[in-house]
Amino acid sequence: MADFDIHILGCGSALPTTQHLTTSQIINLRDKLYMMDCGEGTQVQMRKMRIKFSRLNHIFTSHLHGDHCFGLPGLISTFGMLGRTATLHIHAPKEIEDYLLPILKLFNQYLPYKVHLNIIDPTQHALVMENRSLEVYSIPLHHRIPTCGFLFKEKQKEDHLVKEMADFYQIPTKLLQGIKQGEDFITPEGEIIPNSRLTRPAVPAKKYAYCSDTAYYPPIIPIIKEVDLLYHEATFAECDAVRAKKTYHTTAKQAAEIARSAQVKKLLIGHFSARYEDDQPLKEEADTIYPDTILAKEGLTLSL
Amino acid sequence: MADFDIHILGCGSALPTTQHLTTSQIINLRDKLYMMDCGEGTQVQMRKMRIKFSRLNHIFTSHLHGDHCFGLPGLISTFGMLGRTATLHIHAPKEIEDYLLPILKLFNQYLPYKVHLNIIDPTQHALVMENRSLEVYSIPLHHRIPTCGFLFKEKQKEDHLVKEMADFYQIPTKLLQGIKQGEDFITPEGEIIPNSRLTRPAVPAKKYAYCSDTAYYPPIIPIIKEVDLLYHEATFAECDAVRAKKTYHTTAKQAAEIARSAQVKKLLIGHFSARYEDDQPLKEEADTIYPDTILAKEGLTLSL
Repeated sequence: MADFDIHILGCGSALPTTQHLTTSQIINLRDKLYMMDCGEGTQVQMRKMRIKFSRLNHIFTSHLHGDHCFGLPGLISTFGMLGRTATLHIHAPKEIEDYLLPILKLFNQYLPYKVHLNIIDPTQHALVMENRSLEVYSIPLHHRIPTCGFLFKEKQKEDHLVKEMADFYQIPTKLLQGIKQGEDFITPEGEIIPNSRLTRPAVPAKKYAYCSDTAYYPPIIPIIKEVDLLYHEATFAECDAVRAKKTYHTTAKQAAEIARSAQVKKLLIGHFSARYEDDQPLKEEADTIYPDTILAKEGLTLSL
Repeated sequence: MADFDIHILGCGSALPTTQHLTTSQIINLRDKLYMMDCGEGTQVQMRKMRIKFSRLNHIFTSHLHGDHCFGLPGLISTFGMLGRTATLHIHAPKEIEDYLLPILKLFNQYLPYKVHLNIIDPTQHALVMENRSLEVYSIPLHHRIPTCGFLFKEKQKEDHLVKEMADFYQIPTKLLQGIKQGEDFITPEGEIIPNSRLTRPAVPAKKYAYCSDTAYYPPIIPIIKEVDLLYHEATFAECDAVRAKKTYHTTAKQAAEIARSAQVKKLLIGHFSARYEDDQPLKEEADTIYPDTILAKEGLTLSL
């Protein structure tokens, strides 16, 4: 079972090329999938990467620029043809309605499943979605149109029961759940067995922050503090810093500065401008501020 | 210079796979490009096939199913980012307005060029577009929603002047254009030099018919009579003939029957269902009726 994997489906910017597709990523958390953005061609990329369509129930849209959402109509149609019945939740700024409602009406009148649009306010840092494994929060970003990133906070798993100890103390089954959640055990003789002897701690819960598209914007730092992995857009190299500022994008070095200030554990950069044939110089610029920066690449999977 | 080439960008049906993209083709006629349908991922496929974006001014949309038009928004945006200024003409049934106008408003308010929607009536066989090299006619088809194919009729080029003869008779420059168009030359002495001695006939004008999507529909036969190349959808094999009928699609064998009845010079089949891992049996079924049927394939180029 995938514990917390990030799949990069596309990491180019507005202009797709033979080198990079437009933006899309998928988180696989305990075998449930969560998509961030859905540029044109995402569904084919899912097939190439053998990602299971049926496991995806939530799509998070950062903003309504085409390179982040032009793959949605095709994906929605394909789900229908594959006989999907589970509701698909799309969490997005309100402009999603102007975009998708006419398309759903024209192309998807007889879908066998429901598309639920959860309208979010990209200017607020707020809880967007929650289930047993996960909380997702919006991260207000600074772009040409209303845009937010997303913070994926895994919920802490229960501690593991040490089976030998449970057997030794003959702990009744009905008490096991409480012990996994931290209770001590009191023997029939009144002896207190501390929880720490009965359990092994679960792997610490992980956090992933997805921040694209945005200008250099330090207000996000407290929100993404110490995440296990930060994906930050790095559309431009330092030589194009003026253009980055003008278009509300970030340079690789600025992304690294955000990562360093937020003390994140790993930095992944992407959303590369089509003007660069080689992305390696972007990594090298980021590395001067935040060593071992990872370059996104179509097909890349990172496990937290 | 390409005289009359057909490029296959995508030849799958509704579900794109790793094997086939959704529908799109480009005609290169005397170095001007004409696109038929534009499924998701078409713009990336154009880059892979090194097709020049700036040479494309006309897109013909057969019908408003997603696998034939979900690539339009991305292509329109990309044209804008590449600094296009020439008007882009999209010839399509009226539903194109319900689809594209909201998208143009939401995503493309500041395009540096104009998108002109030429609304066509898919139920009529009529002239859709004409320029110096070409006439394009609609071909009414029989599908679940209003759909038409397109007949591309190259205009006859002028005959070639035989330069040695023009020199020999010292034909004045001002008369040469008339001779290329068929006039005889009368020498100052009154001798009539017949046109056939002064010119070589140009290559005969070519015709290409694009028919997708459609049920088996013999009324198209007189329209596509003797075309140099017929592209006909062949979504299904004969074993799925019931499904073909139900979904208003054609089997490979039926496509071949249309081709044989219309006495076309070559048959190209495509729009293959995702259910077939191998398209070769479709060719074999077609070949029993119309020998040497050509299977469409992404990246294929045919020269008429």
